[in-house]
Amino acid sequence: MNRDKRIAVLSPVAWRTPPRGYGAWETVAANITEGLVARGWDVTLFATADSITQGRLHAVIDRGYEEDRTLDPKVVEILHISELMENAGRFDLIHNNYDFIPLAFSRLIPTPILTTIHGFSSDKIRAVYRKYRNNGYFVSISDSDRDPELPYLATVYDGIDLSTVTFRPRPGRSLVFLGRIHPDKGVHLAVEAARKAGMDLIVAGIVQDQAYFDTCVRPHIDGRSVRFIGPVDAAQRNELFKEAYAVLHLNELPERFGLVMAEAMAAGVPVIAMDRGSCREVVDHGRTGFLVDNTDQAAAAIDKIPAIDRRDCRRRVEMHFSIDTMVTGYEEVYAKIFAERIRLKPPTVCEPAALTAAQPNYS
Amino acid sequence: MNRDKRIAVLSPVAWRTPPRGYGAWETVAANITEGLVARGWDVTLFATADSITQGRLHAVIDRGYEEDRTLDPKVVEILHISELMENAGRFDLIHNNYDFIPLAFSRLIPTPILTTIHGFSSDKIRAVYRKYRNNGYFVSISDSDRDPELPYLATVYDGIDLSTVTFRPRPGRSLVFLGRIHPDKGVHLAVEAARKAGMDLIVAGIVQDQAYFDTCVRPHIDGRSVRFIGPVDAAQRNELFKEAYAVLHLNELPERFGLVMAEAMAAGVPVIAMDRGSCREVVDHGRTGFLVDNTDQAAAAIDKIPAIDRRDCRRRVEMHFSIDTMVTGYEEVYAKIFAERIRLKPPTVCEPAALTAAQPNYS
Repeated sequence: MNRDKRIAVLSPVAWRTPPRGYGAWETVAANITEGLVARGWDVTLFATADSITQGRLHAVIDRGYEEDRTLDPKVVEILHISELMENAGRFDLIHNNYDFIPLAFSRLIPTPILTTIHGFSSDKIRAVYRKYRNNGYFVSISDSDRDPELPYLATVYDGIDLSTVTFRPRPGRSLVFLGRIHPDKGVHLAVEAARKAGMDLIVAGIVQDQAYFDTCVRPHIDGRSVRFIGPVDAAQRNELFKEAYAVLHLNELPERFGLVMAEAMAAGVPVIAMDRGSCREVVDHGRTGFLVDNTDQAAAAIDKIPAIDRRDCRRRVEMHFSIDTMVTGYEEVYAKIFAERIRLKPPTVCEPAALTAAQPNYS
Repeated sequence: MNRDKRIAVLSPVAWRTPPRGYGAWETVAANITEGLVARGWDVTLFATADSITQGRLHAVIDRGYEEDRTLDPKVVEILHISELMENAGRFDLIHNNYDFIPLAFSRLIPTPILTTIHGFSSDKIRAVYRKYRNNGYFVSISDSDRDPELPYLATVYDGIDLSTVTFRPRPGRSLVFLGRIHPDKGVHLAVEAARKAGMDLIVAGIVQDQAYFDTCVRPHIDGRSVRFIGPVDAAQRNELFKEAYAVLHLNELPERFGLVMAEAMAAGVPVIAMDRGSCREVVDHGRTGFLVDNTDQAAAAIDKIPAIDRRDCRRRVEMHFSIDTMVTGYEEVYAKIFAERIRLKPPTVCEPAALTAAQPNYS
């Protein structure tokens, strides 16, 4: 592998990279950066100024806009992205972990952009991807989360840092829900399934939809059969898995990847997940957990948890969802891009001829 | 004047250019475009596809996002702006009537950008203007609406199309408020001043702040002493001025320019305005209206309206706030830019040398 290329990794600026607590895209961007640096790549991370990396840090935004509410998110993201675009010439490849904006300006720079599509924040942004589909390279984070009109180079699953997740050979006593408190994530279904199985449930995560929390979750919290512990950082999450008999991931919407399922399995915790989106790519049904269609099936699956060998859960993550696996995946993608040697269509306005023609009075 | 240069005028895409009703920035962008075309300039208007111009129209957005609520404003504005940036090389000058985003990407293109700052949509966007202050040229729309840290080339007042405003030599019977229904615009103060003067008031405009309308305006509407007629298009506005004894413009915030004051005066209608921001630049105190500090002074000024010669109002607009005057102002600014011949700092990534260095594997 030719590791003398200069890579720019673009992380969001909602949170620090890596984030102190919640911040899925920033987590993955950090793992990609640190994984590449560990293998000898020259990586510059574009992120908030308080970010932490073993690579080079390039920052024009002091703090994440979710951590400093005096900031205007639109101003911050535009300044962050334009800073990278201005410095594009210093890199052989831009690895974009942001949303669609860098793509819209991709024809203005000579450097190829690889975009990991961590999710379409809305269907309306697909128009940008489609317009610029031939001006960039794309990676999906699961086979199921693909737009049929985009030319993907590969699926590269998110990788987690296994050194931060302790393997727990013995099951805990509670079911656990871990994730954003939002209807999409099916917290209310986890409550229902736990009740049907007659087991306790611990709910952890940031409240993203307060009305949903107030009406569908809070009424069930009694401090015993259903406990709510709020957001957890990496260390608290690691402790939480000690108490976990299984993780309930009864998502209402198709999952794009499902980092939390991989994290649970890394701790040896089996996962019971709705068979929607990427869940069947992450959970090995019958071996590291169960895929279900409703809460009755979820309750029945809870009874079958003793059949799972928790070491199989850990092994599956080591094989498929580790930073190492992810970085190997990206190295293969980078190699394809560099080997292609088919230069992207030259930027529209940056050709020397265009420069001359455009500015008869400025020479 | 050297009119063989190619100008790109960037209009917003909130509304059609020119707008069907409300849409201040689109109105000015239309007037600039048509005024330049009438004088022989080669102008390309970047606006929505349903826009109307005698120049060339370049559009990638079908309809304004305020006119089609299925559109995502952020997606639409990014696609609109990046389209212009990709075509920058075809123009000698970009005249930006949008907000800050084009400026943030100005170092990626070789074409100089002149930005007319129609207003800072929030204080937080000033950071972008300051970072890129040496990568563009700036025009203010009044002397009062200037950021002390920006290097302005000139103030160019907005110009209105005098052919659409009929001069009304005889005063109407009502006071008129015309503008967005928003606390900044002081509709409640107009109501108060009209009551103190014992005159009827007609209120026209789009309701931008429904709560304000419901609590501070609606209770006063009785269909006689205070009438509300909703939004008005250009033709309806022209008719409305026939009924106007004077226009009350008792703005709570400093006015940036105040197009409606110029429109009223063009119809011969005197304007009573708060002495805040640009109002003293538009209204000639004692000659085309009165500047006041509170509603008592406004009521007293209403008594003095007979002293105003309505022909002076029209004349002031012809002299200072016509499309012709505005276009002459911009021609002088363009001449300064073209004559400077000091090329803006070349775009960071577009130098041929940088291209070669950046892509050892792509040649």
